Amino acid sequence: MGLLVVGSLGLDDVTTPFHNVENALGGSATYISLAASYFSGPISLVGVVGDDFPKEYVNLLEAHNIDLEGLQIIEGGKTFRWSGKYHYDLNARDTLLTELNVFEKFDPIIPPTYTKSKFVCLGNIDPTLQNKVLDQLDNPHFVVCDTMNYWIEGKPKELHKVLKRANVLIINDSEARLLAKEPNLIKSAKAIREMGPEVLIIKKGEHGALLFAEDVIFSAPAYPLEVINDPTGAGDTFAGGFIGYLLKTEDISSKNLKHAVVYGSAMASFCVERFSTKGLENLDYLMIQDRFREFRDLSRFD
Amino acid sequence: MGLLVVGSLGLDDVTTPFHNVENALGGSATYISLAASYFSGPISLVGVVGDDFPKEYVNLLEAHNIDLEGLQIIEGGKTFRWSGKYHYDLNARDTLLTELNVFEKFDPIIPPTYTKSKFVCLGNIDPTLQNKVLDQLDNPHFVVCDTMNYWIEGKPKELHKVLKRANVLIINDSEARLLAKEPNLIKSAKAIREMGPEVLIIKKGEHGALLFAEDVIFSAPAYPLEVINDPTGAGDTFAGGFIGYLLKTEDISSKNLKHAVVYGSAMASFCVERFSTKGLENLDYLMIQDRFREFRDLSRFD
Repeated sequence: MGLLVVGSLGLDDVTTPFHNVENALGGSATYISLAASYFSGPISLVGVVGDDFPKEYVNLLEAHNIDLEGLQIIEGGKTFRWSGKYHYDLNARDTLLTELNVFEKFDPIIPPTYTKSKFVCLGNIDPTLQNKVLDQLDNPHFVVCDTMNYWIEGKPKELHKVLKRANVLIINDSEARLLAKEPNLIKSAKAIREMGPEVLIIKKGEHGALLFAEDVIFSAPAYPLEVINDPTGAGDTFAGGFIGYLLKTEDISSKNLKHAVVYGSAMASFCVERFSTKGLENLDYLMIQDRFREFRDLSRFD
Repeated sequence: MGLLVVGSLGLDDVTTPFHNVENALGGSATYISLAASYFSGPISLVGVVGDDFPKEYVNLLEAHNIDLEGLQIIEGGKTFRWSGKYHYDLNARDTLLTELNVFEKFDPIIPPTYTKSKFVCLGNIDPTLQNKVLDQLDNPHFVVCDTMNYWIEGKPKELHKVLKRANVLIINDSEARLLAKEPNLIKSAKAIREMGPEVLIIKKGEHGALLFAEDVIFSAPAYPLEVINDPTGAGDTFAGGFIGYLLKTEDISSKNLKHAVVYGSAMASFCVERFSTKGLENLDYLMIQDRFREFRDLSRFD
């Protein structure tokens, strides 16, 4: 029983000042699963798509040892669609369109073969659904969850219930400040860990990530990329690399959590180098380890 | 012949959501000199004040082994004044008032005993003045300079002349993008180093700093402070700690530049913990080394 991933699968239209793609493979569960697949497999994916979801994308996921028993394909339904446009510096984006489609009535049903999963990664979906997933599981050891400002503001009660059940929360810095209602990031981290998750990771995009665990604060750098083509999915990819590495090593000590944060960052750096999931499709473990070492050189000073 | 510091000395009124101070000691040369004073002395300061500049501030500087032979005190003149108000998250501020006063006609005259200074730190002043300082020096070994968007946009020609003569440029991330006319920070760094300085440091406030030198890119974390009282002077303090450490060690290898960046970051973390220069007035080298080690623990993962 390996890793269970629950989240969205979607078709994305992405525009940047340099290029654009249409009907590209997207969704949080997609990025998480692909990133995690380089560390351990098979990955158990639970999500929903319409019957317009291209067969080539199904093949791509399966080729990465992602088990699709839990993927609901709704006859006559349309897949979740997202469209976004990035600004010139790629740090800001406008969402042009969000069509929930089959995702609107998504009821995550965990196949019996998945209910004993020890590691669980809950992508950024309605916390009501995240709780529903956890209700169906048989004593998971390690639950990682993601959320966003939309749920922090719109479903605080359900979200706090998830937080009490999660081991790790991964959010970005503005979301952390919003969740804790506190401008200081370090105080925010303390407050959020008191809400439930013993481990908190705050993603800061081009500024790296912070890990808060027990008495440890760890600051991971961002990879100094000269070419960033598409930041879509970087946060989900980070989460996938992070939990994938922990599953592979079966070690959740503070020291190994740091390594996992760096592996997550490494995967995210591959992700943003190309459009959609392209940067995650043809990696191998040696490339990932090389990048891990580059992160070490980047931040080491003794 | 130690370190020559040229820049502003001022009287600051600072308001934050938590507290405010009036007529506080400020100015780039002040912060640079105080920070550097913990590493090596005496520091040779060149600047200008009016005769309203409080005697206690003169005493404070002298008590930190800062030599004031180059400080011009203009009879009947008023000291440079700055007033700023920080927002709730302390990352943004509004300048409420800038009164140049005696600084408007500042002509930096380098006393003969300073002209052989080997290390020079040019605070953020008009690049015309920065060039004037360099014109008076007798073959300085290591020139660090600071600048800002105002000079990047307003005095590009003079600034580029400074850059050709400087060994190190220290600026923040938005200034780097502006100077290079390039949104990607890594490409910006490459372009700026081609303008002259072989070493570039990009300060990112609460996200740490990046060092670019030879084939080295180094990412230094920011210190995770729960209490930040006043960010004023943090960048100047960073520069002072950076160059102070290099002067102390007389080693400008890439490895030691990394250490200097961390010492600069450590000094900046002390600076922002208290208002005005208070956080820099009563340190000792053991406290600074302890904080250096905390930075190491913060970013080390093997």
